[in-house]
Amino acid sequence: MRGYVPGEQPRGGQVVKLNTNENPYPPAPGVIAAVAACASADLRLYPDPTATALREAAARQYRLSPEQVLVGNGSDELLTIVMRALVGPGDVVVYPEPTYSLYDTLVTIQEGRSLTIPFPADFTVPPALLDADGRVTVICNPNSPSGTFTPIEVIEELARERAGLVVVDEAYVDFAPTNALPLLARYDNVLVLRTFSKSFSLAGMRIGLAFGAPALLAELAKVKDSYNVSRIAIAAGVAALEDYAWMERNVARIVATRARLSEGLRARGYEVLPSATNFVFARRPGEDQGPIQTALRDRGVLVRHFAGPRLGDALRISVGTDEEVERLLSELPAR
Amino acid sequence: MRGYVPGEQPRGGQVVKLNTNENPYPPAPGVIAAVAACASADLRLYPDPTATALREAAARQYRLSPEQVLVGNGSDELLTIVMRALVGPGDVVVYPEPTYSLYDTLVTIQEGRSLTIPFPADFTVPPALLDADGRVTVICNPNSPSGTFTPIEVIEELARERAGLVVVDEAYVDFAPTNALPLLARYDNVLVLRTFSKSFSLAGMRIGLAFGAPALLAELAKVKDSYNVSRIAIAAGVAALEDYAWMERNVARIVATRARLSEGLRARGYEVLPSATNFVFARRPGEDQGPIQTALRDRGVLVRHFAGPRLGDALRISVGTDEEVERLLSELPAR
Repeated sequence: MRGYVPGEQPRGGQVVKLNTNENPYPPAPGVIAAVAACASADLRLYPDPTATALREAAARQYRLSPEQVLVGNGSDELLTIVMRALVGPGDVVVYPEPTYSLYDTLVTIQEGRSLTIPFPADFTVPPALLDADGRVTVICNPNSPSGTFTPIEVIEELARERAGLVVVDEAYVDFAPTNALPLLARYDNVLVLRTFSKSFSLAGMRIGLAFGAPALLAELAKVKDSYNVSRIAIAAGVAALEDYAWMERNVARIVATRARLSEGLRARGYEVLPSATNFVFARRPGEDQGPIQTALRDRGVLVRHFAGPRLGDALRISVGTDEEVERLLSELPAR
Repeated sequence: MRGYVPGEQPRGGQVVKLNTNENPYPPAPGVIAAVAACASADLRLYPDPTATALREAAARQYRLSPEQVLVGNGSDELLTIVMRALVGPGDVVVYPEPTYSLYDTLVTIQEGRSLTIPFPADFTVPPALLDADGRVTVICNPNSPSGTFTPIEVIEELARERAGLVVVDEAYVDFAPTNALPLLARYDNVLVLRTFSKSFSLAGMRIGLAFGAPALLAELAKVKDSYNVSRIAIAAGVAALEDYAWMERNVARIVATRARLSEGLRARGYEVLPSATNFVFARRPGEDQGPIQTALRDRGVLVRHFAGPRLGDALRISVGTDEEVERLLSELPAR
């Protein structure tokens, strides 16, 4: 098998990096201070294996109980934990695609079977998704790489109609109009995943949260490494939640820039799907965008291109600052 | 199944914590400075997914190539990666026991089969280990909880005689007389695991290294989460390796205190196995040490006790500072 291939991480140089959906704004001052405070002799001590302080902070913020929160080394680790705990050889995992390609990688590692339901061109939910059943259903919402948002009512229907677990990967949800957390009060088979990498500007820190029923999380916790989250990640996560308004301000700025970017791309002949994320999915139907990605890269602007029949005619472009987005638009080769 | 149960992590209070083999001395000043320098806006950016800087630093220190190094979120994650990559339902994993109980947990999660060879009372290598064969053999060297050291010649014999992978878990090896790294030049089926949690005083940071053949590591890397190690962990790991002498000085102090602790325990009627680690394994044959652990805890001293027929009559005691060890010895109930 081939492993998941992450987006390019340049090491040095002055590039405009719009390829891995990082936040262009820094984390909150309180986060920086909390990290600095961790630079101490206490690093010799193990972290709290259950990250109690971060679970408690998340429970306060999201009006849950700490027992409804599990902390991961990024939401990637939480996805890994779900698959390791629930998927064995031959077990079916359902998800619409194209989506985050890590799902396929993880199912393959478990020797499970991916039952993928193709999205239509507008990335609305394929009705066949409601008929498919599996041990686990994963829905990336908002979806990557399309940026599109599935209404929560559809996810609720999924949760109601099937026995298996419905994982809602909400990595980008802070940029969306609403989220699936209210479903937790009504459905024990819903697991919501969050990350601090995008809206909280902490991709370099590795923090993810899973929200779900305490009994489910207790099962998942058996599979996680004992000390999966560092002392610093716990402290940074708590501080990030304590300045929630900082994150919301950055999200508002990104949402404003997203509109400008979408408009600029449309003016340059792209079809742009409505985005509920910190990136846009821009397509020139039938025109391979690989050469455009390469040309942009030669001009110092990184964007993401996924080769293949479904995605090859599109670019996924992270929403940077207004200046970065201007630079992208000005470097974009004429049609 | 039951998950692995880590040692108790007290949250507050003035206890003498000799139960999870943390280093009583702080990490190097350069490490503290490197962590402080990471408290910046750059936390918004993903880490290098292959932790190049840390692999290069490790390659320099241990005279290997960077392709012979894989970085993990602690060596626990590296063990998890090995099992996920190599062990499927019914596959046999061989190890002597009692040993680090995480091996059993990980094999169970993979639905593999543990073929365990009992150590004799002196924890020398059981000859049956050389006859057993499996897809993976794990040898914790020095071993936990016994603290004993298996000569490298025996590990070489294992590597030579079998086709499967031989994993040498060297979490404690910096406290031992020698190590298995020289085997890498001669055997492609040897994987050596290290951690920064013990000798480098960085349990709170989560850094592990795997050393092995590049082709093997490339396979293992397919299974790891893309961004498994934070920007701060990479920087801290590099700084720790750059002040190797700091680690060696702390190790020398701990080895000196270890002798004092062993002597004190023998004077109090314990049989103490020769230790090549930062803890000692002290036994009163036939006498359950659970009540002693509880009594010590009531007096503010945490040590580790493993219930059961093989280990119940022993305590595993981390080597703290001289003062902490004095405190333990003075609080130890008379026989």
